[in-house]
Amino acid sequence: MFFRQRHMAYNAKPDKPDPIFAKMLQEPLGGQWGEISVMMTYLFQGWNSRGPQKYRDMLLDIGTEEIGHVEMLATMIARLLETSPVEAQEDAARNSLVGAVMGGSRIEDVLVAGMNPQHLIVGGLGARPSDSMGNPWTSAYTISSGNLLADFRFNVTAESQGRLQVARLYNMTDDRGVKDMLSFLLARDTMHQNQWLAAIQELEEDGLETTPVPSNFPQDLERTEVSYQFLNHSEGTESAQGRWAKGQAPDGKGQFTYVEHPPAYTEDEGLLNPVDPRTYGTPPKPVPPSAS
Amino acid sequence: MFFRQRHMAYNAKPDKPDPIFAKMLQEPLGGQWGEISVMMTYLFQGWNSRGPQKYRDMLLDIGTEEIGHVEMLATMIARLLETSPVEAQEDAARNSLVGAVMGGSRIEDVLVAGMNPQHLIVGGLGARPSDSMGNPWTSAYTISSGNLLADFRFNVTAESQGRLQVARLYNMTDDRGVKDMLSFLLARDTMHQNQWLAAIQELEEDGLETTPVPSNFPQDLERTEVSYQFLNHSEGTESAQGRWAKGQAPDGKGQFTYVEHPPAYTEDEGLLNPVDPRTYGTPPKPVPPSAS
Amino acid sequence: MFFRQRHMAYNAKPDKPDPIFAKMLQEPLGGQWGEISVMMTYLFQGWNSRGPQKYRDMLLDIGTEEIGHVEMLATMIARLLETSPVEAQEDAARNSLVGAVMGGSRIEDVLVAGMNPQHLIVGGLGARPSDSMGNPWTSAYTISSGNLLADFRFNVTAESQGRLQVARLYNMTDDRGVKDMLSFLLARDTMHQNQWLAAIQELEEDGLETTPVPSNFPQDLERTEVSYQFLNHSEGTESAQGRWAKGQAPDGKGQFTYVEHPPAYTEDEGLLNPVDPRTYGTPPKPVPPSAS
Amino acid sequence: MFFRQRHMAYNAKPDKPDPIFAKMLQEPLGGQWGEISVMMTYLFQGWNSRGPQKYRDMLLDIGTEEIGHVEMLATMIARLLETSPVEAQEDAARNSLVGAVMGGSRIEDVLVAGMNPQHLIVGGLGARPSDSMGNPWTSAYTISSGNLLADFRFNVTAESQGRLQVARLYNMTDDRGVKDMLSFLLARDTMHQNQWLAAIQELEEDGLETTPVPSNFPQDLERTEVSYQFLNHSEGTESAQGRWAKGQAPDGKGQFTYVEHPPAYTEDEGLLNPVDPRTYGTPPKPVPPSAS
Amino acid sequence: MFFRQRHMAYNAKPDKPDPIFAKMLQEPLGGQWGEISVMMTYLFQGWNSRGPQKYRDMLLDIGTEEIGHVEMLATMIARLLETSPVEAQEDAARNSLVGAVMGGSRIEDVLVAGMNPQHLIVGGLGARPSDSMGNPWTSAYTISSGNLLADFRFNVTAESQGRLQVARLYNMTDDRGVKDMLSFLLARDTMHQNQWLAAIQELEEDGLETTPVPSNFPQDLERTEVSYQFLNHSEGTESAQGRWAKGQAPDGKGQFTYVEHPPAYTEDEGLLNPVDPRTYGTPPKPVPPSAS
Amino acid sequence: MFFRQRHMAYNAKPDKPDPIFAKMLQEPLGGQWGEISVMMTYLFQGWNSRGPQKYRDMLLDIGTEEIGHVEMLATMIARLLETSPVEAQEDAARNSLVGAVMGGSRIEDVLVAGMNPQHLIVGGLGARPSDSMGNPWTSAYTISSGNLLADFRFNVTAESQGRLQVARLYNMTDDRGVKDMLSFLLARDTMHQNQWLAAIQELEEDGLETTPVPSNFPQDLERTEVSYQFLNHSEGTESAQGRWAKGQAPDGKGQFTYVEHPPAYTEDEGLLNPVDPRTYGTPPKPVPPSAS
Repeated sequence: MFFRQRHMAYNAKPDKPDPIFAKMLQEPLGGQWGEISVMMTYLFQGWNSRGPQKYRDMLLDIGTEEIGHVEMLATMIARLLETSPVEAQEDAARNSLVGAVMGGSRIEDVLVAGMNPQHLIVGGLGARPSDSMGNPWTSAYTISSGNLLADFRFNVTAESQGRLQVARLYNMTDDRGVKDMLSFLLARDTMHQNQWLAAIQELEEDGLETTPVPSNFPQDLERTEVSYQFLNHSEGTESAQGRWAKGQAPDGKGQFTYVEHPPAYTEDEGLLNPVDPRTYGTPPKPVPPSAS
Repeated sequence: MFFRQRHMAYNAKPDKPDPIFAKMLQEPLGGQWGEISVMMTYLFQGWNSRGPQKYRDMLLDIGTEEIGHVEMLATMIARLLETSPVEAQEDAARNSLVGAVMGGSRIEDVLVAGMNPQHLIVGGLGARPSDSMGNPWTSAYTISSGNLLADFRFNVTAESQGRLQVARLYNMTDDRGVKDMLSFLLARDTMHQNQWLAAIQELEEDGLETTPVPSNFPQDLERTEVSYQFLNHSEGTESAQGRWAKGQAPDGKGQFTYVEHPPAYTEDEGLLNPVDPRTYGTPPKPVPPSAS
Repeated sequence: MFFRQRHMAYNAKPDKPDPIFAKMLQEPLGGQWGEISVMMTYLFQGWNSRGPQKYRDMLLDIGTEEIGHVEMLATMIARLLETSPVEAQEDAARNSLVGAVMGGSRIEDVLVAGMNPQHLIVGGLGARPSDSMGNPWTSAYTISSGNLLADFRFNVTAESQGRLQVARLYNMTDDRGVKDMLSFLLARDTMHQNQWLAAIQELEEDGLETTPVPSNFPQDLERTEVSYQFLNHSEGTESAQGRWAKGQAPDGKGQFTYVEHPPAYTEDEGLLNPVDPRTYGTPPKPVPPSAS
Repeated sequence: MFFRQRHMAYNAKPDKPDPIFAKMLQEPLGGQWGEISVMMTYLFQGWNSRGPQKYRDMLLDIGTEEIGHVEMLATMIARLLETSPVEAQEDAARNSLVGAVMGGSRIEDVLVAGMNPQHLIVGGLGARPSDSMGNPWTSAYTISSGNLLADFRFNVTAESQGRLQVARLYNMTDDRGVKDMLSFLLARDTMHQNQWLAAIQELEEDGLETTPVPSNFPQDLERTEVSYQFLNHSEGTESAQGRWAKGQAPDGKGQFTYVEHPPAYTEDEGLLNPVDPRTYGTPPKPVPPSAS
Repeated sequence: MFFRQRHMAYNAKPDKPDPIFAKMLQEPLGGQWGEISVMMTYLFQGWNSRGPQKYRDMLLDIGTEEIGHVEMLATMIARLLETSPVEAQEDAARNSLVGAVMGGSRIEDVLVAGMNPQHLIVGGLGARPSDSMGNPWTSAYTISSGNLLADFRFNVTAESQGRLQVARLYNMTDDRGVKDMLSFLLARDTMHQNQWLAAIQELEEDGLETTPVPSNFPQDLERTEVSYQFLNHSEGTESAQGRWAKGQAPDGKGQFTYVEHPPAYTEDEGLLNPVDPRTYGTPPKPVPPSAS
Repeated sequence: MFFRQRHMAYNAKPDKPDPIFAKMLQEPLGGQWGEISVMMTYLFQGWNSRGPQKYRDMLLDIGTEEIGHVEMLATMIARLLETSPVEAQEDAARNSLVGAVMGGSRIEDVLVAGMNPQHLIVGGLGARPSDSMGNPWTSAYTISSGNLLADFRFNVTAESQGRLQVARLYNMTDDRGVKDMLSFLLARDTMHQNQWLAAIQELEEDGLETTPVPSNFPQDLERTEVSYQFLNHSEGTESAQGRWAKGQAPDGKGQFTYVEHPPAYTEDEGLLNPVDPRTYGTPPKPVPPSAS
């Protein structure tokens, strides 16, 4: 059960409207690596968690924090899309909405050409739950497998991709209000990258899971001769230079080897049998018409 | 430029057809964490790579290997869907295709109820590029950011989720041929988890990227007072027990602190200004009809 | 069974081409609240209807009318994308298609930057069955539940959102031909909003359905103590000022009450049991490796 | 900014596991009219609201309440998918996971055929953010237009469709724990249908919006002669019997008329001009090859 | 502008309900190659057509016919999902809806496990605009390029895939009413395959378009030395046996040749330049932190 | 099993960066008719093939070739998005990333407005697996039915639509490097159109499949009186002028006839029975509340 506090987590106030940047800022709101994705991912991982309660509580803490980040970004975008009532009043004589929205400057055509038309037509100058190209957010971005190590590895990825995108956006604007909010998100992403890395260490120290995930699967059931082989599948051997090609593997259970000319481990060419003619697939030889 | 060898990478031959397991096996083929996803992800990361050539070559090696894994799974599914020509012949008198497909056993109704109808109607008893619930594979599963540490963290996740799913499927069948193929995929996933962990170490040792990603962004531009704070957002303090709540952070650049009652860092309540009435959003007070 | 008449329902002829407005006009054609959505929704509601025939006939009337609206919008967009043969002839010497398409004016770069590239590359300067951001129309926008009151409420929404979008677009162009067509769509949306409101009254007067939908479900089976409570879940009590917080409810079956501090109605914290280790979820405590 | 309380809003505890009902219960969680949809819709409407604060606060109240409903349904589904640790222990000797999951009963094949395979393979016996057919939830289900009357009409629809689905599910199970939770959701849907109907009355009484939406658009700009006409587009005249075909329209601004043989209001047949041959569309007559 | 006739195009009445076949029959209704796809494709091709009017009229004829096929399939599915009122009456004492829907037979569990749950929960026992796995129909299935030869080739494909699917379904049921309707669809698909093949001949004879599409593009601008080469990219030379590897090409403009060992036509290895460090992509060498 | 060669298939080097053309070039990479689509389609058709081996080998040859085309386009796009390191250096003083990316020219605002924001924010100036409007590629574009004639008809369509799009793009740029690469793709599309047409001839000559697909279905089971009728469904009889309306059909098995006024072949109006009230659909008459 959840409650909402009146104040936002942090400032979300731009110096002035900027509909093109509003379009771009949809990416960290409703994009694959945006705030809706981490909000939903952490909440579902928490609700589905069957492990020790400290992990569950931690997941629900951070999932709840992320709802507030969604709130901040939605608010910022709605503000980047608004003009002051005064400006709107002054534009009352113009016969084009476009001018009013954009403030009537001479570059309005560029702005209209570059803004997200759904911001006006569909959302009425409000934030949209979509990415910067207008793709709706999809819950396929929500990852919850029941295995915390697999999921925490996803989480550290999400915070890395997310911080990367915010850092790129930070360089694309001079608006101090926008930069101020992004500086907060960057800091929280720093925390969360560290947090998930720490949580991975904790899981391993608690003996709950190690590499390879799932560690509980008996490794002798896998085809062990290829468990630590690097298989070269392209011309050139630059890939032999990395530590993935020699020395002890990170799981401490095997030694990497480099296979320059990987063999096929089978004589099987993948040829299929013909099937029932009543499925009307093309057979190896002509067949008479099927009966019903 | 690519070439195809006649033999597959490994065996992909079941003991006998099993259309319900064929449905489930679509997950590691065309699901979010299936072989198409890693094939496309590694190839795009390689083609887009602007870093040292050893990483690029390595990405293209493994991306190319994964095309062969897609091939094995597609072949296995097509075989799980087929009956022998002899059986089909014997069933010729029956007036229902279903019987022929399923071998005419008494549990055919269960099988028809449980199989993926598109395996027959759309694919003609061939593999589909979709997951176990029939969702088409989407390139949203392809991750390539230009930042190798962000991407390698994704890659180790993909191999973890993938191996987890294969391990679950291993326990859901008694077919020795299927188990044989899965044992090969499990081993390669072991390798690939280790490989990406090793690649992450290499990236850090090469000085190209560290935590927090992107490490090249000047950290003093972020709101540093919240960069290492754990913010408790839910009742209960179990989350205070983990190492994400105290001690040095994994990046070595800060100390975790636990904030039991996180403040709002702003007085801003997120209220918006009214906008131009010609957008027909609901205003704070009634307005007269707009002119055109 | 359907037939098509030679004339369109109304004019769909712009004064001149405008590829950027063509992009925007995709929203009322192929967007969530566009004409394809209402066409498909009303036809499916009609075909699936099991109620009195007057509703079924009415649904199929309006569904059929909407096919003609799709036709008008598609035609308008195709015309907004075309240049006259004369202009094309004159441009023959230019070596860029772009110039010809746009009429060779000096703002062509803005136009190319702002137009929908699929209008040219994919559709050959024809209308697309997509929205203004290029998302394909999806039948998830088609609502048909079998319950006419639930569906008519959707229909009045669709006509409201649709008229709202058309009104916004009306203000974004000075083209008299476009405005003429939009004035027809606005009028039909006025009719259709009224129509569905009238149909809701009729349903209620016919005794077929009332609030709460489905009214045929025995209300004493629901947890009646919370059936008319407004539960305050956020700081501030502005929400207590509305009529949803006190007085008789619109269904005439209860009195609204305002609960400033809503309780949890359970002691349940949502903790889950551990499960079979062979699913490889993270357990509360370490487990030995699973057997196959 | 949001906080989470330890207890759930209501009980979410089934009498016993039931994986097929777990599949069905995904619909009110992650389906088009499920709890994620209303949670996201109300929150976005609230954050984007520019109207009087009582509406904004009310939207955020109910949006926050719905997060808790998502929590209840996710928890219920995770529990419907679990077996007790004891049963899992007893099944340890079996070599099929399926047996363990299902409790080893003789109808296990039916259950495996009918359950959602992603519940096991992808989610590790946890809830999924998808509907009952496995379609991921999409933010296209989130409606926020900036116009509160258009949106409240959507909201009353959502609560109607949602209550309808829950009522259907109530009849498909005998599990008292499941029925108990559904009885709570049914009651809240009763409240919320009433609430949105009351909010619509309030909006109209506040003079902020009336039919037709948007009421601020000058109605004399629409093609008024068709603003109150019912246009018969199908054989049969049953549709003439409803109140949408005669009498005063609900907006009080016009009289319905029934047009049995609706005319085309244009001579326009929708024929298009030929275009620039360099777009390679099929022209009315052969053209010579284009130059580059 | 369109009108609807009272009678359907053909019978759509099953002998008896069959919810599992109803699920399968969604494929020719709302699947990729179903009736909605051809309806929308032909209508859009017609509306967008800029070629001779006989093609436009023909496209709109057949597009309009297909609306009637959608109607037939929707009606059939709704009937496959219904029980007689008498049965429903008799089942009134049962406390499970499931029994009533299915007729109370002992195989009800199989049926519930195998049916599409959305047919009941979402659609109220009506047809859905989705395929047999529940994927919503998407307008990505609608093809309209402006080039009639490219599009007619698509159309003959659509009628081929469609007839193939209907033929497979014909063999999966013994219901005479269903088979009767399918026999009509099969015949129309026969007509339509022939029709599009005839239309392709007509287009070529009219001199409007020939192979290779678009024939109006000056072929000397392409890299002509590879215009008729078969490039062998896989082990084995079985592909040398077909007529695609030798003799005159179907367009009459070149001779096929078989290249057993295709060369790379470039020395380019696809290596990329490093980019601006402010995009935070991984560079070839470490860079100092970026400034803002 | 696949291997990668160091050199690309052909040159993919533009004269200079052009981010707006990079956006457009996503269409032939990740669009519906782009290289990913044909790569996946041919590989799946090959792996699923149960016909003569020459077809299977040929499919896998061309499928493998297409992987190389994906590589070329991805490389070209990544290069269209890059600036030289020197330019980046020079721009170091500017405080906007945008300037650096675009080379600091005065039209930068146009370019930023027109480019794909995900190229920078998400992909770090690398190619995306999406189309020109940012829609992710979906495997719904992958066609494999098991029937080679149905599929080869699709393949010739794909090469026609693909070559059409590339020809349009060829006219939208003056960059010689881009035009050079496109000239190669145009030539290969010429080959592939011819190849599939030749393969269709081969299939028919081999006696494996003819019109109507599937030819193995006994044609006397279809409703033969409508198998060769052209049914006029729209006003006007221009459609009577084509060869689809008279003369022998292309399959040589029937004579086309033109039906100016097509009858309904049934008296059935599609009316449905009422259903079980416990599904809460709207019934023909009021019903008492249901029991649970």
